[in-house]
Amino acid sequence: MAVVNGDEAGVPEGAQSRPISSIVIITAVQSQALPLAEKFQLVEDAALSAEGFPWVRYSGVYKNLCLNVIWLGKDLALGTAGGLKSKGATIGDVFLPSHVAFHDRRNPLPVCDLYCIGTRQAFSTPDLLKELNLKAGKLSTGNSLDICPQDEKLITANDAAVKDMEGAAIAYVADLLKIPIIFIKAVSYIVHDEKPDSDNYLKNLMGGSVALDEAVVRAIEFTNGKRLSEL
Amino acid sequence: MAVVNGDEAGVPEGAQSRPISSIVIITAVQSQALPLAEKFQLVEDAALSAEGFPWVRYSGVYKNLCLNVIWLGKDLALGTAGGLKSKGATIGDVFLPSHVAFHDRRNPLPVCDLYCIGTRQAFSTPDLLKELNLKAGKLSTGNSLDICPQDEKLITANDAAVKDMEGAAIAYVADLLKIPIIFIKAVSYIVHDEKPDSDNYLKNLMGGSVALDEAVVRAIEFTNGKRLSEL
Repeated sequence: MAVVNGDEAGVPEGAQSRPISSIVIITAVQSQALPLAEKFQLVEDAALSAEGFPWVRYSGVYKNLCLNVIWLGKDLALGTAGGLKSKGATIGDVFLPSHVAFHDRRNPLPVCDLYCIGTRQAFSTPDLLKELNLKAGKLSTGNSLDICPQDEKLITANDAAVKDMEGAAIAYVADLLKIPIIFIKAVSYIVHDEKPDSDNYLKNLMGGSVALDEAVVRAIEFTNGKRLSEL
Repeated sequence: MAVVNGDEAGVPEGAQSRPISSIVIITAVQSQALPLAEKFQLVEDAALSAEGFPWVRYSGVYKNLCLNVIWLGKDLALGTAGGLKSKGATIGDVFLPSHVAFHDRRNPLPVCDLYCIGTRQAFSTPDLLKELNLKAGKLSTGNSLDICPQDEKLITANDAAVKDMEGAAIAYVADLLKIPIIFIKAVSYIVHDEKPDSDNYLKNLMGGSVALDEAVVRAIEFTNGKRLSEL
């Protein structure tokens, strides 16, 4: 979820003092995008799919907010997040991660090492965390649904409570564009919990999606009319 | 290297019959981009870096071709490719891969499995292969400089002779935009050759870059004035 109007470091002055005007919600799964589009009466952007891109965009105006929901296309069906039991994550928890980093980009060469881990801070939203009663923690991102021993080592180094397959990449782009970003991550399975991660992933996906949609709707309501500094 | 004027499948008719007008060369390393910019007297696009993007672009006109060289920025210093000894690759070999796929995007869920492996065919250029005396083979891409056992298994499944860290991602974007793409990959180290891959990578990087630049210059000369069907 990206809220437009500057961020804490290196954005136009004055942006902090205006109410938030626009929110872009990026999700990986159709089942998370559609309820939001329906709830806020957003309309699909037909031009985007006509151009052959796999992304689907819904947009519209809700109260004082220009809302956009983008899901990552028909050829991808991933979503929510895996929780780390060692960090106290349980199924149905909704996290508001403070930091995000990669766990599958291994490169020991100087400069490349830090670039590949790509740690970035989410926009700080202490009031949102409290109001929605979400869990604090860090997020780690990798290209695979499962994790191999090398991934696990870096997830531990990243001090992550939840893992997903897109967060750190979205943070990289948001950082380039100087757009403040917030992650809302519902735990739909526990990493390495008896069964293969793919079985666990499917089993609780809907439950995780419902918890996520509920949190996102409440976050939009909370954001309406507020300044960035009030989140 | 992307050559503009349609591709074999699903591009404007007539594009095949016109001579190639534009080439975009994408490389990961400054040491590969600068000699090409110098050789073809290309000029840096200052606007791109002024906007805060890490990518650097050089452009200009050479004979009948509009040339663009893009390297992937100051925060990234990777390049060339690792060769697989089992496929007969040796240091200094230059490959013209026929196919590209990912080896670090593991996901057993239906549809996702094929999406994550992301096999794509490069534009077929039999005359270029012969004229430049390059090696045929397949390319496999992953985010890490080294390979873990899970990566190795998928590199074998991808039947790859060379591995890099960007090819399949560039192929994905080229496919979305329906732009024909050619890969030219010089082997600068052998995967798992006694020392860690990062030591091998640094040791022969310059040698690999020289072989690569020579092949790219010859490919540009060969392309000039030709149609796609003549490559």
